[in-house]
Amino acid sequence: MAKLYFYYSAMNAGKTTHLLQSSHNYRERGMSTLILSPAIDQRFGQGVVQSRIGISAPSVIFHGKEDLYELVKKQPPVDCILVDEAQFLSKAQVFQLGEVVDQLHIPVLAYGLRTDFQGELFEGSQYLLAWADELKELKTICHTGKKATMVVRVDDEGKAIKQGAQIQIGGNERYVSVSRAEYKRIFHDEGSIKPSQIALPLEDL
Amino acid sequence: MAKLYFYYSAMNAGKTTHLLQSSHNYRERGMSTLILSPAIDQRFGQGVVQSRIGISAPSVIFHGKEDLYELVKKQPPVDCILVDEAQFLSKAQVFQLGEVVDQLHIPVLAYGLRTDFQGELFEGSQYLLAWADELKELKTICHTGKKATMVVRVDDEGKAIKQGAQIQIGGNERYVSVSRAEYKRIFHDEGSIKPSQIALPLEDL
Amino acid sequence: MAKLYFYYSAMNAGKTTHLLQSSHNYRERGMSTLILSPAIDQRFGQGVVQSRIGISAPSVIFHGKEDLYELVKKQPPVDCILVDEAQFLSKAQVFQLGEVVDQLHIPVLAYGLRTDFQGELFEGSQYLLAWADELKELKTICHTGKKATMVVRVDDEGKAIKQGAQIQIGGNERYVSVSRAEYKRIFHDEGSIKPSQIALPLEDL
Amino acid sequence: MAKLYFYYSAMNAGKTTHLLQSSHNYRERGMSTLILSPAIDQRFGQGVVQSRIGISAPSVIFHGKEDLYELVKKQPPVDCILVDEAQFLSKAQVFQLGEVVDQLHIPVLAYGLRTDFQGELFEGSQYLLAWADELKELKTICHTGKKATMVVRVDDEGKAIKQGAQIQIGGNERYVSVSRAEYKRIFHDEGSIKPSQIALPLEDL
Repeated sequence: MAKLYFYYSAMNAGKTTHLLQSSHNYRERGMSTLILSPAIDQRFGQGVVQSRIGISAPSVIFHGKEDLYELVKKQPPVDCILVDEAQFLSKAQVFQLGEVVDQLHIPVLAYGLRTDFQGELFEGSQYLLAWADELKELKTICHTGKKATMVVRVDDEGKAIKQGAQIQIGGNERYVSVSRAEYKRIFHDEGSIKPSQIALPLEDL
Repeated sequence: MAKLYFYYSAMNAGKTTHLLQSSHNYRERGMSTLILSPAIDQRFGQGVVQSRIGISAPSVIFHGKEDLYELVKKQPPVDCILVDEAQFLSKAQVFQLGEVVDQLHIPVLAYGLRTDFQGELFEGSQYLLAWADELKELKTICHTGKKATMVVRVDDEGKAIKQGAQIQIGGNERYVSVSRAEYKRIFHDEGSIKPSQIALPLEDL
Repeated sequence: MAKLYFYYSAMNAGKTTHLLQSSHNYRERGMSTLILSPAIDQRFGQGVVQSRIGISAPSVIFHGKEDLYELVKKQPPVDCILVDEAQFLSKAQVFQLGEVVDQLHIPVLAYGLRTDFQGELFEGSQYLLAWADELKELKTICHTGKKATMVVRVDDEGKAIKQGAQIQIGGNERYVSVSRAEYKRIFHDEGSIKPSQIALPLEDL
Repeated sequence: MAKLYFYYSAMNAGKTTHLLQSSHNYRERGMSTLILSPAIDQRFGQGVVQSRIGISAPSVIFHGKEDLYELVKKQPPVDCILVDEAQFLSKAQVFQLGEVVDQLHIPVLAYGLRTDFQGELFEGSQYLLAWADELKELKTICHTGKKATMVVRVDDEGKAIKQGAQIQIGGNERYVSVSRAEYKRIFHDEGSIKPSQIALPLEDL
């Protein structure tokens, strides 16, 4: 029975690696998959999903207004659909992925962030958390040793950036995955984070 | 290490039973608990949490504007806090429960619905899904045999009610827990549900 | 799609409450269930499953050599089968429950302990851990505040009993659910546990 | 709080990829890890853990009689220990990993198969299933479309091999991950599996 899965995590937890491994598992058994990625994320060129750990696969790009149910119906039949950066889906697109599951009976694995740098849900995440059949966490670690569940946007001095667009690609900001307690220390209590605790620039967004 | 847990489900899954069992487990080992319930739900009288299966326990009532961090600090120290009907929490109150975990190091178990009768997240659920350390589903069954993940509000003829206040206590409406596919059949496609498939009136809201 | 679920825990976590709630959920939606319990556990009389929290339901008793696949086929058709004290199943009976799922397409929810007082798997638990489609933990708490995952058998002075039959009903022994670290302190390092930390006698075995 | 995790799955689910990603996450945040792999698996040379998807990392080899608690204490301090092919651990070694968690407070992530080609638990898996703090499934897919939870050993004609050593490296046998229903069709009911449904030889063992 097909289901809609939402694999959520903070940044740099390995979402894309998990997506690529799952696609690989299907293909290895002689089945076919379709990888979807939003147009917003074109770091690696049109139609490539790439993991920090060094693996990649081609994807079909979709745009913000595109009907994903229609998109899937036009493609050759597949056994599984995988969506990268699913936090960027619109409400309508999450509904359409539900239709892919319920009408076409194809499992959909959507991978995305839970919250943005202000602690608010992304639109895609909000409706995946509301409507997915299964919510699965991909765990990662905060530099404090706790589980990292939130993402803070910091400037060159490791101070929280508190205002700005939800999506900002390019620039000098860095994103750091931290525990909720550490998030509050930096975002609400004017703390800062040391450069050595900041993993890598804009890797997984 | 204390954590904020969100146990979510559709209606009539046994959330309150799970809450009462967890509280019982703590008390049986000589530890103490505090059960919180929102003022909105006064079916069973002030300060009682009651499960459909026939068990109950006293609770402390909180109001919509109340600061739960301050409320907890004023109570005698406890080993665990349990929140019934957590979908009715405000954004501020979910933040305050996070503070109870992160500052007072008391685990918080919050139990609530994911979505309302229109498929939208409740405010409390939205921020628990965003900020909880652990999301745990309590499963229940749709009359179609699938897992029930959504709640539909129906009239006397089993037709979906599509408009109205998010919270409506009293009246002839009934709530039914159904799968996403069945929800769409009733809510979007004008289907109806037979009276025999409707469990019981307004039991768990 | 029917599945074989193993809900495992230490003692006194609320396994029977969870079983009774799940059965209640099915029946409330107009579906039927069958509760099975092993002949070994006759504390509450033949054919009753009872939770410490004060709820109960009738069950069908099975014996150690009984073929559960044949037993189920002889009963009127049901929508779900629930097995209490599943640690006492034989290897053959776990296989037969798998056949109920795979041939008759009825979901089976089996509830049981993981390990005995010596830290070894029960036969039923061993094969449920090997063959179940889903392993789900029901959490409970150790008096140290950690999660309790093991069960220690202690004498009147709170010292570990290290030898004896795996199943021992009656007598002055007590069972206590503790974390792995606390288990080792008591069982391996000759520690003891205070009477006040011992919940209740032989409640859930 | 450190925990002992058992990530279990059938073959070719991506256990080693998950292990390498988790190690990468720690190192990226400036923390250190230790990867352990059993001497039995020397396909890729001494001291290398390699994933089918094309990534690898150096590991420390351990032997069947080695005391892993002593081994870890002799190494420089680390923030996380990851164990590949954990099904090959002895009972004593699983106990020692529990001591690493409970005495040294270092989290241990062990990755392994649940069952062998005869459906029996490996020794390492048996005691990880008994004593781990968290059991986490890594899912993979059967060629029938169901979840694969078991491993069948087949000959050149796709017929089940029913006897033989639990561990057999080299030779013409192939291992295939299948659902429990498909396992029984092949192993018990003399069915066979088509060569096209057999993924790749001896990849993940």
